[in-house]
Amino acid sequence: MTIKLYELCGVDETNLFSPHCWKIRLSLAHKGLSHETIPVPFSKVATLEGGSKRKVPVLRDGDEVIEESYEIALFLDRKYPERPSLFDGDGARAMTQFVISWSQTQLHPVIARMCLMDIYNRLAPVDQEHFRITREKLFGMTLEKFSTEMAATPADLKKTLFPLDNMLGRQAFIGGESPLFADYVVFGALQWLRTVQGEDGLPKDGRVAEWFNILLDMYDGLGRATKAA
Amino acid sequence: MTIKLYELCGVDETNLFSPHCWKIRLSLAHKGLSHETIPVPFSKVATLEGGSKRKVPVLRDGDEVIEESYEIALFLDRKYPERPSLFDGDGARAMTQFVISWSQTQLHPVIARMCLMDIYNRLAPVDQEHFRITREKLFGMTLEKFSTEMAATPADLKKTLFPLDNMLGRQAFIGGESPLFADYVVFGALQWLRTVQGEDGLPKDGRVAEWFNILLDMYDGLGRATKAA
Repeated sequence: MTIKLYELCGVDETNLFSPHCWKIRLSLAHKGLSHETIPVPFSKVATLEGGSKRKVPVLRDGDEVIEESYEIALFLDRKYPERPSLFDGDGARAMTQFVISWSQTQLHPVIARMCLMDIYNRLAPVDQEHFRITREKLFGMTLEKFSTEMAATPADLKKTLFPLDNMLGRQAFIGGESPLFADYVVFGALQWLRTVQGEDGLPKDGRVAEWFNILLDMYDGLGRATKAA
Repeated sequence: MTIKLYELCGVDETNLFSPHCWKIRLSLAHKGLSHETIPVPFSKVATLEGGSKRKVPVLRDGDEVIEESYEIALFLDRKYPERPSLFDGDGARAMTQFVISWSQTQLHPVIARMCLMDIYNRLAPVDQEHFRITREKLFGMTLEKFSTEMAATPADLKKTLFPLDNMLGRQAFIGGESPLFADYVVFGALQWLRTVQGEDGLPKDGRVAEWFNILLDMYDGLGRATKAA
């Protein structure tokens, strides 16, 4: 039975941009599992698969419906233990939470400050309204005010990525010689920027750029196949 | 044969303050291995155990001499595989490098900016001279200029610790239900501040404070036994 992955989309259903969905796209490829993508606009996410407060990604595998990217990754490792692990041990399963926290609290805010209006501009009107209401509540100000007063630059992003840059001086991936789910967590954040705003804001050279390009090319160029905005 | 651990000290040989040495003190306790501490002042570190460019900690176990805290942790897991692992799997062994990078590039600079002169003030004159020369070269300015113009506050430290605080909302340790070497890496940084400056600059409440206090109390209060400055 085909695995179904509900993924966030804008007006253009092929422009998949959610960082959390990208974590799972690469995780499925990592495990050699194919899937069917079901694009979902913002305003339809909450009620997916009979849920009442869903967030994407949502994955259906046979009778099982799993939500939240880390939970999905755990599920995939549990259900397909004979395929390459996304964690490679109990320690990494726990420590991935630190990478998620770092990405979520350091990287995501900077990227949101770089490309909030780019996200807004690629949504259908009904989703724009949904996005505006939820985000303005979260930020406590209008989208327009947020994206001018709080604007972040590529230099801010580069600075925020420094712990990763530093680590890449010692090994090729967060997972060591090959990527693990923790790599896809950080990849998802940069791919989010790439798919909504383009490549200008991304690191252009150096170790992070190199690492990101390798991940874009992996799994038959899965990451690169979704074009930059 | 007793494991010997060469650890950095100031004028007071019982005031062990090196963050990197603390990583290994807790790692040895984690593995249930006793050791003999050999206190070493800054100016004697480079030539320890016949080395020419040593850094502490240096560990001697029988005929083997190992340097650099991560390498020592790997060695201890390799040599004593029947005792509790410091990594718990290959994935965590790699991912610890990310935590080290984060601690080193984010946490250490803030702490150095909080307590540089406190370190200086607890050294013997010959070590003060060594410390001044090496650090002024590193920072490109005098110690005094660095510690006034670059001064950081407890609020800066709290902000820097936010990825850890966020993660501790989901699990008790970076290692999950119990600590791993990655926890000791971050513990070492905070214990450095505690032992050279006292407890005023440390988080006083909240999840990081709670986590740090648990680690101070572990292993019969090993961390707390070295008193705060």
